[in-house]
Amino acid sequence: MPRIRDLAIYESKLPPGRHNAITDVAGVAVGHSTVIRGEGAWTGNGPFRTGVTLVLPHAGNLYEEKVTAVTHTINGFGKVYGFEQVRELGTLETPIALTGTLNVPRVADALMTIAIEQNPYIGLGFSATGRQGYASVNPVVGETSDGFLSDLQARPVGLAEVRAALADAASGPVAEGAVGAGTGTSCFDWKGGIGTASRQLPQEAGNFTIGVLVQTNYGSPEELTVVGVPVGRHIQPPKPETRQEDGSIMMVLATDAPFDSRQLGRLCQRATFGLARTGSTCHGGSGDFVIAFSTTNRIPDRTTKLQVEKPAFYEQPAMSLLSLAVIEAVEEAIYNSLFMAHTVVGRDGNTRYALPVDEVVQLMKQYGRWPAS
Amino acid sequence: MPRIRDLAIYESKLPPGRHNAITDVAGVAVGHSTVIRGEGAWTGNGPFRTGVTLVLPHAGNLYEEKVTAVTHTINGFGKVYGFEQVRELGTLETPIALTGTLNVPRVADALMTIAIEQNPYIGLGFSATGRQGYASVNPVVGETSDGFLSDLQARPVGLAEVRAALADAASGPVAEGAVGAGTGTSCFDWKGGIGTASRQLPQEAGNFTIGVLVQTNYGSPEELTVVGVPVGRHIQPPKPETRQEDGSIMMVLATDAPFDSRQLGRLCQRATFGLARTGSTCHGGSGDFVIAFSTTNRIPDRTTKLQVEKPAFYEQPAMSLLSLAVIEAVEEAIYNSLFMAHTVVGRDGNTRYALPVDEVVQLMKQYGRWPAS
Amino acid sequence: MPRIRDLAIYESKLPPGRHNAITDVAGVAVGHSTVIRGEGAWTGNGPFRTGVTLVLPHAGNLYEEKVTAVTHTINGFGKVYGFEQVRELGTLETPIALTGTLNVPRVADALMTIAIEQNPYIGLGFSATGRQGYASVNPVVGETSDGFLSDLQARPVGLAEVRAALADAASGPVAEGAVGAGTGTSCFDWKGGIGTASRQLPQEAGNFTIGVLVQTNYGSPEELTVVGVPVGRHIQPPKPETRQEDGSIMMVLATDAPFDSRQLGRLCQRATFGLARTGSTCHGGSGDFVIAFSTTNRIPDRTTKLQVEKPAFYEQPAMSLLSLAVIEAVEEAIYNSLFMAHTVVGRDGNTRYALPVDEVVQLMKQYGRWPAS
Amino acid sequence: MPRIRDLAIYESKLPPGRHNAITDVAGVAVGHSTVIRGEGAWTGNGPFRTGVTLVLPHAGNLYEEKVTAVTHTINGFGKVYGFEQVRELGTLETPIALTGTLNVPRVADALMTIAIEQNPYIGLGFSATGRQGYASVNPVVGETSDGFLSDLQARPVGLAEVRAALADAASGPVAEGAVGAGTGTSCFDWKGGIGTASRQLPQEAGNFTIGVLVQTNYGSPEELTVVGVPVGRHIQPPKPETRQEDGSIMMVLATDAPFDSRQLGRLCQRATFGLARTGSTCHGGSGDFVIAFSTTNRIPDRTTKLQVEKPAFYEQPAMSLLSLAVIEAVEEAIYNSLFMAHTVVGRDGNTRYALPVDEVVQLMKQYGRWPAS
Repeated sequence: MPRIRDLAIYESKLPPGRHNAITDVAGVAVGHSTVIRGEGAWTGNGPFRTGVTLVLPHAGNLYEEKVTAVTHTINGFGKVYGFEQVRELGTLETPIALTGTLNVPRVADALMTIAIEQNPYIGLGFSATGRQGYASVNPVVGETSDGFLSDLQARPVGLAEVRAALADAASGPVAEGAVGAGTGTSCFDWKGGIGTASRQLPQEAGNFTIGVLVQTNYGSPEELTVVGVPVGRHIQPPKPETRQEDGSIMMVLATDAPFDSRQLGRLCQRATFGLARTGSTCHGGSGDFVIAFSTTNRIPDRTTKLQVEKPAFYEQPAMSLLSLAVIEAVEEAIYNSLFMAHTVVGRDGNTRYALPVDEVVQLMKQYGRWPAS
Repeated sequence: MPRIRDLAIYESKLPPGRHNAITDVAGVAVGHSTVIRGEGAWTGNGPFRTGVTLVLPHAGNLYEEKVTAVTHTINGFGKVYGFEQVRELGTLETPIALTGTLNVPRVADALMTIAIEQNPYIGLGFSATGRQGYASVNPVVGETSDGFLSDLQARPVGLAEVRAALADAASGPVAEGAVGAGTGTSCFDWKGGIGTASRQLPQEAGNFTIGVLVQTNYGSPEELTVVGVPVGRHIQPPKPETRQEDGSIMMVLATDAPFDSRQLGRLCQRATFGLARTGSTCHGGSGDFVIAFSTTNRIPDRTTKLQVEKPAFYEQPAMSLLSLAVIEAVEEAIYNSLFMAHTVVGRDGNTRYALPVDEVVQLMKQYGRWPAS
Repeated sequence: MPRIRDLAIYESKLPPGRHNAITDVAGVAVGHSTVIRGEGAWTGNGPFRTGVTLVLPHAGNLYEEKVTAVTHTINGFGKVYGFEQVRELGTLETPIALTGTLNVPRVADALMTIAIEQNPYIGLGFSATGRQGYASVNPVVGETSDGFLSDLQARPVGLAEVRAALADAASGPVAEGAVGAGTGTSCFDWKGGIGTASRQLPQEAGNFTIGVLVQTNYGSPEELTVVGVPVGRHIQPPKPETRQEDGSIMMVLATDAPFDSRQLGRLCQRATFGLARTGSTCHGGSGDFVIAFSTTNRIPDRTTKLQVEKPAFYEQPAMSLLSLAVIEAVEEAIYNSLFMAHTVVGRDGNTRYALPVDEVVQLMKQYGRWPAS
Repeated sequence: MPRIRDLAIYESKLPPGRHNAITDVAGVAVGHSTVIRGEGAWTGNGPFRTGVTLVLPHAGNLYEEKVTAVTHTINGFGKVYGFEQVRELGTLETPIALTGTLNVPRVADALMTIAIEQNPYIGLGFSATGRQGYASVNPVVGETSDGFLSDLQARPVGLAEVRAALADAASGPVAEGAVGAGTGTSCFDWKGGIGTASRQLPQEAGNFTIGVLVQTNYGSPEELTVVGVPVGRHIQPPKPETRQEDGSIMMVLATDAPFDSRQLGRLCQRATFGLARTGSTCHGGSGDFVIAFSTTNRIPDRTTKLQVEKPAFYEQPAMSLLSLAVIEAVEEAIYNSLFMAHTVVGRDGNTRYALPVDEVVQLMKQYGRWPAS
């Protein structure tokens, strides 16, 4: 299965990074754990088509070296975790986990366990350790519902799966489609999942990199739009007997621009524009969220040093280019989540088919969009 | 000049209302006052290509019968007036005025004058009138910058112009393009201005009407996208010697759905999706704002009656259709602002050309988008 | 141990309800589960001084009959769950749970289990049940850290404890102090915990009831202020060898006023004023949150009926009285959490002493505040 | 008239700066213009008891060297100007003006005029000047209503008054009470007005200064609380025949801590705690706003340089001390606005009396609060 850029139907104004992935932002790693167990009718304990995907801002101890971050809510019909503290402090202190909706508490609990293992003073205060540590840790978890293909009620993703995703975490190319948190999700009633893309900014915009990773799970078939072509009007998946509820999307933005949380928040607003390009109409039941972080500034967990010398960055001269980078990367990451996903048969025989890439390319030709000029 | 719907290149999933205008929401009226004075070089007091556009939620005394409202900020690089109180109280108590950026204070002052004329107890408290009246009035004014065509510094729009727009206010068809607050604005470096559209919701979504009016002033030429076709790649205006700054857009949403401000806020989020469809990349210098109101519930200025029997409305079952309606109406209103605008020559000979509609239709044919299926 | 009102040192402008408790709002019930296990040194699995407290807006199936709600963040250094969806939809669909910080995911997971038991179609969509049900459920959990007295890392509160709190839930008088989620928390370095109070509004403010329940866990000893008297300057607890981190407070507001979420949000802002009266200086490490709900309007989980006839309420004429009610009830609930708490010895022998009520009353006399006039 | 600190009834935990004024933040200047014209009955053009107060973050060209800033809304029933752009960009580019409610547009217009005079390229773009300048300027204006004492409808504060305030601007001691924007405002039905205070942070909190300036105009007489003593229960002004509407407060925070807008926003939240200490119950008709800025980082209007080397500051270790500083300074500034105000007779003979300072001190003695220990 090819990524959209390999099909000559997509062209961006800004160039992608080396892997055209969120991992093009130096230090960022992605790990998946995929849960596929059972077949056929729902048993109350499966079948499962779900998983977890981790985005790690850097390879060190995130609790000790937090990164600048922010969250943004487009349509808040979702069960994410950890957003309040990120907004208040502007920092991220665990990896970002994405998973199926009802798994969120178990994944958050797992991130707590792992953070405590790495930082055994968490929650103990001063007496047991003599250290100045805050009394808690704030896991950040996003989700979309994979209930069409997977037994949502049974919540099969927890500590073992998060550990597996952590072990899998790597920089470089990122597995896309029906993998990790994308194993059971749908997009325009096709198989969706994980997608990623990146943009390299020119010198006049600071030479920064912006990377995006999405978990796609939204849209009605007729809405699918690819590079402006109404694909959903012509190509639709077989109609399932069971209609899925309104879906959702999680979008993770990474950058090495030394942004504070206000500046990252401005980038988040632009993610909506990329999402809209794919045909999303932001259904009422959608949980559409953005989490953005910058890898450049490292914030200690606690310090007596008040002054941290770091470059501050005045974003306004570059903001229009940064906007374009976010919009393009979000759009392309979503296409990749569709184009890279294979057909998945899940609980009760519910099936999400792979988008027929050849048909899409053929249609793009009819609409004068191949080869992308 | 035709509206886009007359050109067989645009098709919506939801039908428009009778006039395909914000005035399709019963009771809503729109009035323009257009200021065109002077030619040639900037004198410090002109030339002017500016104006003011008023949107009136109903024909009565808005201060005495406020309507439910909310505001939403996409990119807050703008000088709007009155947003804080609308957010706090969820009500609108003057017409919404749109104008050129630096005119805002003078237009707000004019709305105060008119509100005081209509409600002479404003600001006097109890002693002079014996009436329970709040001590102030909150004008709501939006803006985008018409400084490329018009002398922005001189701020020529004030009380006389607002009175003229009020006198012009009517229901029914709405003048579009280079008129009122759209007289001097640009869109993708073409002449933009005022545009409007509406959608009629089906019975299962409450049979409501959603109307939109926009003041367009954003975008780089190469970004213009019409119904998914990259028009800006092929058709561009002559490059002016003077480059305009990043632009902006004001979007006004009206509905007769009996929404509270939270619900209206959800509609506002969807306006971004409509804007994105036209190619906007939300430049850093953009002031992109949404103001939404519902005409159904009337809130008295002050009352001793606490209970007002009104229908509450549970939006979730209809939200996806409502989203679609907002997105489509915003998109079409923006196209109308472009397609209906004629060429305007302004200060220092700066010129914004009318979008060459025939060329656009020809291009749409090449891209297989005519007639819209 | 007496409540502050029994000591003649506190007087309110507005009268309390029958029980001076959040349960004075008709239908509201409160249940506690208290976890006390182990003594002496920290073992990695205890000792525990923690628990969970549930606030139930009504006795029915909350998922089927949601109530109007909102959340508000004063200082977002906390790990609450479920706030995004409450803000988006303005509804609450599970009981509100309060617990110790790191227990939150396990308590959220427990609320999911219980909601699924009650509503077995959750997460199954249409196929398995033929019912129109949303695919998920949104638990709402608040927290403060009880890590000074309890082993925070081990997270001992889960499904069994939530079930026990649910079984304990009742209207009428509410247990206060070191109980449920208040078992291990501290306030101004005294033993704090759960407190509650209510206010009955006069006829001109709609005859409504406002109830408050707090979980107190904030403040430095010298800051404690009781009815304006600087108690903390004169009466301080023995200084522990271990200093606790900055604390937090959860405040739950209930009312039978038929408020929408904007209106509830205005009430939430007033909670800060009540908190400030007790001497809080809103430490940087505080997680200070408010959750407010109205019991009057019931929102179905999903319906094809769009119109729900309900009284809308114009709050402005009564808002100043409503503000006063919230402020007074928050202030008194906090005092009750202190005055009703007994001394607790926890992990590593860490001890939080009961506020010496007699000394406080004596001091109030010296400051001319007894009997409260 | 003495400031509260001179009366031995007030003591702070943190020391004030040299002048105990917002001007203790290096570079900050304050200027007043007081408008007192006419006596007796309302004529439709007076009598006037109003004015304007300017806070200047530094002595340079603010448009060319913007400072970091943020706004915060406690109760948004007000007509402030310029808040959207401050939130988006995190910068302030004009002085902050405070005035009477309906004067805001005229004062905003005046700030535009002055900014254009100083920066004649504003609004002209590239052609006329060859300079890269943004096309607009964002004045920031706050207000409370002085309608009880002054003719609000006639809006007598404009360009001349703003110029006069600018000419008056100075560092050092600040005139308080019935002066500038405080000429006609009321506080707890006494004469209120302008007040200021500052706090000097210790070395471990960065040795920073925090300064506050308030325009007080809120509160019912019985609510007034001074250092915890219920002054309003014992000492009340003569009851006027005319009752004033709910009032408001503007609070301006200045600091030399090198904060970004998120950090400044956290300070703003603390202002509420200082306000609450004085007895405010945040009436429903209140327009309670905070504007905060940092003088340290200077943001150019436009630059091709993207990187600006500046110290970033990790606030969390010092946040609790910073909170205390804001709370104390707001509280003391409010007291100063009351204690320093003289009796003012306004339109229709409406009178606001000076708080009888001797009686207050006497009462404080009875309550055991003198001398402040």
